[in-house]
Amino acid sequence: MKQIELSLLKEHERTVVQVGNVAVGKGLCVIAGPCSVESEKQTVETAVAVKEAGADILRGGAFKPRTSPYAFQGLGLKGLKILKKAREETGLPIVTEVVDTRDVPWVSEYADILQIGARNMQNFSLLKEAGKANKPVLLKRGMNSTIEEFLNCAEYVLAAGNPDVILCERGIRTFETYTRNTLDISAVPVLKELTHLPVIIDPSHATGRVSLIPSLSLAAVAAGADGIMVEVHINPAEAICDKEQALTPEQFTAMMNHVRTLHRFMESAA
Amino acid sequence: MKQIELSLLKEHERTVVQVGNVAVGKGLCVIAGPCSVESEKQTVETAVAVKEAGADILRGGAFKPRTSPYAFQGLGLKGLKILKKAREETGLPIVTEVVDTRDVPWVSEYADILQIGARNMQNFSLLKEAGKANKPVLLKRGMNSTIEEFLNCAEYVLAAGNPDVILCERGIRTFETYTRNTLDISAVPVLKELTHLPVIIDPSHATGRVSLIPSLSLAAVAAGADGIMVEVHINPAEAICDKEQALTPEQFTAMMNHVRTLHRFMESAA
Amino acid sequence: MKQIELSLLKEHERTVVQVGNVAVGKGLCVIAGPCSVESEKQTVETAVAVKEAGADILRGGAFKPRTSPYAFQGLGLKGLKILKKAREETGLPIVTEVVDTRDVPWVSEYADILQIGARNMQNFSLLKEAGKANKPVLLKRGMNSTIEEFLNCAEYVLAAGNPDVILCERGIRTFETYTRNTLDISAVPVLKELTHLPVIIDPSHATGRVSLIPSLSLAAVAAGADGIMVEVHINPAEAICDKEQALTPEQFTAMMNHVRTLHRFMESAA
Amino acid sequence: MKQIELSLLKEHERTVVQVGNVAVGKGLCVIAGPCSVESEKQTVETAVAVKEAGADILRGGAFKPRTSPYAFQGLGLKGLKILKKAREETGLPIVTEVVDTRDVPWVSEYADILQIGARNMQNFSLLKEAGKANKPVLLKRGMNSTIEEFLNCAEYVLAAGNPDVILCERGIRTFETYTRNTLDISAVPVLKELTHLPVIIDPSHATGRVSLIPSLSLAAVAAGADGIMVEVHINPAEAICDKEQALTPEQFTAMMNHVRTLHRFMESAA
Repeated sequence: MKQIELSLLKEHERTVVQVGNVAVGKGLCVIAGPCSVESEKQTVETAVAVKEAGADILRGGAFKPRTSPYAFQGLGLKGLKILKKAREETGLPIVTEVVDTRDVPWVSEYADILQIGARNMQNFSLLKEAGKANKPVLLKRGMNSTIEEFLNCAEYVLAAGNPDVILCERGIRTFETYTRNTLDISAVPVLKELTHLPVIIDPSHATGRVSLIPSLSLAAVAAGADGIMVEVHINPAEAICDKEQALTPEQFTAMMNHVRTLHRFMESAA
Repeated sequence: MKQIELSLLKEHERTVVQVGNVAVGKGLCVIAGPCSVESEKQTVETAVAVKEAGADILRGGAFKPRTSPYAFQGLGLKGLKILKKAREETGLPIVTEVVDTRDVPWVSEYADILQIGARNMQNFSLLKEAGKANKPVLLKRGMNSTIEEFLNCAEYVLAAGNPDVILCERGIRTFETYTRNTLDISAVPVLKELTHLPVIIDPSHATGRVSLIPSLSLAAVAAGADGIMVEVHINPAEAICDKEQALTPEQFTAMMNHVRTLHRFMESAA
Repeated sequence: MKQIELSLLKEHERTVVQVGNVAVGKGLCVIAGPCSVESEKQTVETAVAVKEAGADILRGGAFKPRTSPYAFQGLGLKGLKILKKAREETGLPIVTEVVDTRDVPWVSEYADILQIGARNMQNFSLLKEAGKANKPVLLKRGMNSTIEEFLNCAEYVLAAGNPDVILCERGIRTFETYTRNTLDISAVPVLKELTHLPVIIDPSHATGRVSLIPSLSLAAVAAGADGIMVEVHINPAEAICDKEQALTPEQFTAMMNHVRTLHRFMESAA
Repeated sequence: MKQIELSLLKEHERTVVQVGNVAVGKGLCVIAGPCSVESEKQTVETAVAVKEAGADILRGGAFKPRTSPYAFQGLGLKGLKILKKAREETGLPIVTEVVDTRDVPWVSEYADILQIGARNMQNFSLLKEAGKANKPVLLKRGMNSTIEEFLNCAEYVLAAGNPDVILCERGIRTFETYTRNTLDISAVPVLKELTHLPVIIDPSHATGRVSLIPSLSLAAVAAGADGIMVEVHINPAEAICDKEQALTPEQFTAMMNHVRTLHRFMESAA
């Protein structure tokens, strides 16, 4: 990597991003919820279920970046209002994606964490705007982005005045097609070694296969990740998008037990 | 490729994008100019030189998407005014990149063609906004994007009401590091076979090496491309960005002779 | 690229590989024939057809490296005898693949050129053995191999005493799945610039699609390639392997006219 | 994946490969040792050190597939004799690479496990020959190979009559250059789900960086791997190859404690 003078690389105590009662970067943070907000019932029921299973933060998309212009693009404002309702019901803070510079100010009124997605990782205008928001930013690594590019994108947010950035590895694009993407597990120790920011893993997008998510979540915890971000749907078969990678609440609950137990072990063994 | 119902795939006579006197999609269109607008002198002199060498359209960036937040980000409005000046001096239409949804309306007042760059190819908000603009759009393929994704992004612009889209292949990211990217020359016949839109090639970003640009420009013409887009700088050694891939006006002039001669031959041989 | 002291990079007049009456590296060399030798009738008829269309060398596999152990592995010695018969009928020299160090001596008695395939590019034992053979070697670039690795593999042959190496770019593996592989057209000027060896292109394996082969052959010629290598089958629908990328003799003949015309033009324009 | 009828995919109890007293596929198998056998002192001392730290099997290369023909190619027979000596001193079984079909019979007299390396994964002649050997085979995934290709290569060995195959993921080639390769951690649950063969991970080649090896070893264990394979050298600074990825005996010992503790925890939690 070229010698770069990024503030996120500088000597600094590890950043802990405080979101309500949740401290991302301290202990293990679990973010769960549906890919898209589809309805109040679907979202609130999922929120209640993941809360019961021990999730810390609710995820859910109101603006969906979709490959095709003719695919469902998300509920927009209506979706944000549903997420707010889910937060009121469960107390879980919410993370939701923002896809347009013009939306940052008003989406910030609903979201506890602004997500910038993989396809927008190098949307530098959006990064700058998120850097001016008063909410933490969860930045996903682009599926074709090097570690160096990823760090520079996080630096765009920091340089604009927002120190609360969470880095998320969600799989990179390779020649392998058996999995949706290839989880770059090495990114966990690399990012922890190079930066002072919290690092989480999204095994749902990385694999696109329900059966692989528990193993990779455990691997992420063992590698030292500060959290995981997982898609859960009350009825995956009817999910509007990414149904093949959504866990049922039962699958999520079972996985959570293993994940929390492993994390306690890792802390005690450290 | 999945069966997709995209209007750009439908039976249709080949789209010709009219930009002033230039008809992109008819004959061979050559777009040339500096990576960034750095100063009036640099831009106007380059414009005059590429015009003399036979270029049809002037390129130049006023908003530069840069890996690092601390790198030169472009001159913005000042840069657009310089481009306007260069157009007045040479009569060449100008293509320039737009990187923020909020900028589309006013950048459209300066640009003859709006460019959407590789890093923003899947910035769907920007694509929709460009679809509402009354200017043609030059869409660059993302460096990690499949042909199918590229077509869907072009369809975002068409679906929003703008039929004037030019597709540009500019190299994809692979394991090879000798060249900056890998020019996917197959994209030329593939895109011409699948769609009715004009297809151009950018050998400058594809290779990142001056010595390879003439050969790849000839290859593009032989493969059936509707045009090429090349970086030229009056003094590459002093260019603010991409200096290793900028041709001098002399190199560009020499290359143009070969390219035009080959194109005439290809037309006569067809 | 690291500073490497390879003899193929050294100052040297361009290597011309003489194979019977054919001089590879002087003019345009066209190699054509079936993927596999399936029968005497199929091979000899194809040989006669490609000879009539103007091919210089006959290709055909007697040992086939196949993904599955249960797929057709080639006719072996029987296949070599059929190739010999085809050479007697047409006068075309033959190039055929060798896949085992133990086979090099006796396959050399049949072949005019030994091919080392993409999957064996880094089979260093095989390279060394081919370096001791008294026949030219056509070395295909591995589908995941960098230019630097490719050059080092060619150097293995040279270092073992055989100066007659032909480099063949046949597509690299990328994330794109629309084409079978991605033809790295830049490899042509790069390899010509760096080495003194002849460089040819295999558009059949690079694309896996008949419709793209003529355009890419023209692109290769325009980029400066010394030859092309194309799969032709008298009845592609019944080919045992790679049927979707085999040209009929009619398609090959039509393409050859364009390719030869373009090459003459390129020579006259140089 | 295409419907393929491979015996390794069939209903079958999990294969346990017995190597002396070591049962690969039962418990956690740790393979450690130098990249290359350089001298008796270096090899025996490393063997003693890794044995003390709890390794089960000694690795060490006598035939080295090297990018350059001018690089150290291994000690050959002399290296095998040194490995034999190290086995006598420590009781550790040895795994060593074979690179030529002609060598399989006599290398089998020294090795307890034959390794087929990443560059030779699709050297089908070598796979067939190893299938006839009476020693287990450790097959490394090619750096550009899909899971499907990897399985088919393992099937070549099984189809030739040798049921004792150990699958090893060692990193794939991607656009990321910060790490030497990208460890495809998903391969662990995928291969365990699809096949009945033991699956191990090589974090040394996957990362090329000492600092990342412990985290990835833990991740592999958490993901369910049957073992790890790690490079250890008594004096990494003087290693002839891969010095930047070799652990010192001290680093290896520290890592082993964590790895074994985690594995016991995973077994108790299952």
